[in-house]
Amino acid sequence: MRDVFIVGVGLTEVGKRVDVALRDLAAEAVVKAMEDAGNEKPEAIVVGNMLSSLVEQENLAALIADHTGLRGVSGFKAEGACGSGGAALLAGYSLVSSGLFDKVLVVGIEKLHERPTPDTARGLAYAADADYELIYGISFAGLNALVMRYYMDKHNVTREEMAHWAVMMHENAYHNPYAQLRKKITLETVINSPVIADPVRLFDSCPLSDGAAAIMLVSEKYRKLNDTPVKVAGIGNALDSPDLSSRFELDRFIAAKLSTERALRMANVSINDVDVAEIHDAYSIVAAISIEEIGFAERGKAPKLWAEGRFRPGDKPVLNPSGGLKARGHPVGATGVYQVAEIAMQLRGDFPGLKVGGEVGLAQNIGGVGSNVTTVVLRR
Amino acid sequence: MRDVFIVGVGLTEVGKRVDVALRDLAAEAVVKAMEDAGNEKPEAIVVGNMLSSLVEQENLAALIADHTGLRGVSGFKAEGACGSGGAALLAGYSLVSSGLFDKVLVVGIEKLHERPTPDTARGLAYAADADYELIYGISFAGLNALVMRYYMDKHNVTREEMAHWAVMMHENAYHNPYAQLRKKITLETVINSPVIADPVRLFDSCPLSDGAAAIMLVSEKYRKLNDTPVKVAGIGNALDSPDLSSRFELDRFIAAKLSTERALRMANVSINDVDVAEIHDAYSIVAAISIEEIGFAERGKAPKLWAEGRFRPGDKPVLNPSGGLKARGHPVGATGVYQVAEIAMQLRGDFPGLKVGGEVGLAQNIGGVGSNVTTVVLRR
Repeated sequence: MRDVFIVGVGLTEVGKRVDVALRDLAAEAVVKAMEDAGNEKPEAIVVGNMLSSLVEQENLAALIADHTGLRGVSGFKAEGACGSGGAALLAGYSLVSSGLFDKVLVVGIEKLHERPTPDTARGLAYAADADYELIYGISFAGLNALVMRYYMDKHNVTREEMAHWAVMMHENAYHNPYAQLRKKITLETVINSPVIADPVRLFDSCPLSDGAAAIMLVSEKYRKLNDTPVKVAGIGNALDSPDLSSRFELDRFIAAKLSTERALRMANVSINDVDVAEIHDAYSIVAAISIEEIGFAERGKAPKLWAEGRFRPGDKPVLNPSGGLKARGHPVGATGVYQVAEIAMQLRGDFPGLKVGGEVGLAQNIGGVGSNVTTVVLRR
Repeated sequence: MRDVFIVGVGLTEVGKRVDVALRDLAAEAVVKAMEDAGNEKPEAIVVGNMLSSLVEQENLAALIADHTGLRGVSGFKAEGACGSGGAALLAGYSLVSSGLFDKVLVVGIEKLHERPTPDTARGLAYAADADYELIYGISFAGLNALVMRYYMDKHNVTREEMAHWAVMMHENAYHNPYAQLRKKITLETVINSPVIADPVRLFDSCPLSDGAAAIMLVSEKYRKLNDTPVKVAGIGNALDSPDLSSRFELDRFIAAKLSTERALRMANVSINDVDVAEIHDAYSIVAAISIEEIGFAERGKAPKLWAEGRFRPGDKPVLNPSGGLKARGHPVGATGVYQVAEIAMQLRGDFPGLKVGGEVGLAQNIGGVGSNVTTVVLRR
C-alpha cells in the first residue's frame, strides 16, 4: 500500500452562502487547495456531497472539474449521507494508494440554503430509512432526540452537563475565520433555547450550512509540493443499519468504534497518542457517543468530562478547535473534508483559528445516526 | 498496483420491478454474486446509483449492507450520473488494488418506476447542467436529439442506417433471460415509432428500467474463489463538461476517447484485440459516437458499418450480445455493473443469452451526454 500525503487544503467560509452558485463555492475551495499544493493540478477528483439532488443537479464531479479547468481528469461523487466527505476521502485515498493516480483532489461541497428549510430538513432525513422511519414523518433531529433521551436516562446525564458542549464549541469557533457561528454563548443560552425535538434544543444542534472544502492527496513522489506535507497514517470506515429500531444498543455507534479501530490499527498508533481531534457533533448527543466510541471517554462519561473542562486547548486530546459542526457549521457532504483539512492545518501549525499543534491528529465523520462512519488519522 | 479479479457476478431481471423494494432488488443481485464467489462475504461494498433521492433514500451503502447481512463492512455510494456503475467499479477496483481490502462487492441498483414517469424523466436530466440546460426545460432525450441531428447532417447518415442498431439489439436481447425487451423488431418498427425529441424516436431510445447487478472484486489471494476468475486488466475514467454548449465538437465524446485510451494502456492491449464489448447505447446516437471514440469505427462511419451487418455474433468485435441498453434495458446506476458482469460471463463462457466467447472484452459506461465515462478491459 503506497503512502498518501496531504499537500494542499482549501476552505471556504461556512454559512448561508446564497451569494455564490454551487460550482463557484466548490471552485473557491479547489483553487485554494491547488494553490496550497504549488499550483499543481490533480489527475482525478472525488466529490463528497449528499443533497445536490435537491437542486436537480447530479454529476457533480464532471460539473466541478469542468468549472475549475480540469476537464478530462477522472472522477466521481462519493456519498454516505452526512459522512459523504469521509467517504470521498476513503475513495481518494485508495485512488492514490493503489497507484492508479499520483494526485487526487477530494472536494466536499454542500449548499443547504438553496431550498426552503422544510425541504432541506426533509432531505437530511434521506440519511435515515425511507421505508421504516421517514415514512412515519420523523425528522433527523427527532431520531437524534430518541438517542439523546435514552442516553441521558441510562447514564444519569444532566441537562447542564450536555449544554457545556455547545458553550465550548462556540468559544473555539470564535477564533475561526471560516466558522459560521462566531459568537460566545452561555449555558443559559443552550438551556433556554427553543426545543426542536425534545430533549434536543436549538443549541444542541448544528446550524444549516453551506460550504466547500478541498484536499490534495498525493503519493510519495509529490509530497514535496508542500513544505509541510501531512501523512494520512490511517483511514477506516464502517457501516451500520440506518434504521435505529434494528440497532442492538441505542446509545452506541458500533460503526464509529469499528472505523476508529481500523484507522488506529492502520496508523499503528494508540488512542492515547492523539493530540487533537475533530469529531462529528451534529448534535451534542452525537459528540458524546463519538467521544466514547473513539475511546476518549468511558461509556456514559463524555458529558461529565467536558462539563469538568476536559478537551479544551491545553488538554490532550483537544477536541474540535475549529468549533465543530455545532459552531464551525455542518455543510453536510463537505464536513468530513473540513475536519481533515483542519487537523492537517493544526499539525502544520497554520490553522487560522485556535492553534493547538500536535504530532498525531484524528478526524471522525459520521453519516446518518452512526450508519456510515469514516475515521482518519494524520501524522506530521 | 495489485491485480484485481472478478470471482462472482449476480444479475436481476431488468424491467418494471414494482414487485420488490429497492433493498430487496439489490439483495437479489448481492446474494447471487456472493454465491458465485463461493459464498464468500466482502469486506466492503460500493453502491452505484444515481436517483434514489427520488424516493427520498440516500445512504444506500449502509442500507444494502444491513439488508444483506453485511453490517460492519466498509462502503459508500459512487455516482456519475448514468455512469454511476462504472464509477462504482473504479472505486471498488482501487479499494482492492490499494491493499485496503481483499474482497469488495460492487452493487449497481436503480429503480426508475417508483415515481411517475415525468418525475423520473426530470430526474434523469440531473445528469445535465441544472443552471445552463435544465433550467430551460430541456429533457435528456432532447439533449441527445441535438447531438443526433448534428451528427446525421454532418456525416450524411440516413434514418434507415441509424435504425439498424435497435433491430440488432432486439435480436440479441431475444436470447437474454435478464433482458427487459425480448421481442424482435423490424426497421419499420423503429422508423415508424413515435417521435420523442426529433429526430430521436421511441425505438432509438432505451426503455425506463429497474434492475440490480453485483460483482465481487478480489485480490490475487482470493482469485480461486471461482473456477474461472476474470482479470480486470484495465480501467479508465474521464470527465467532460455536462453542459453541451461548452463542448468543442458536438459529435464527439472526448471523455469516451480518453477513458478508452487509459483502460487499453493499462491493460496493454490494442483495440484490435477486443473480441466482445458492451457499449452504452442509451440512444442509437450514443452507440454511434461510443463505437467511434473507442476505435471500432472511423468518425461518422459506425451506422454504416452496423447497417452492413457488422458487430453481430461471428464478427470481431461483437457488440452488445446482451441486447445493450436499448433492449437489455438501462437501470441507470446499475448499467455499468451489468455491462462488466456480462462481459465477464462471456469470457467465462456462461452468459445465459447469446454466447460469443473471446479472450479480451471491453465495457464502456457513459454518464450524462458523454460527461462521465468509464471503460473497463477484462481478460480471461
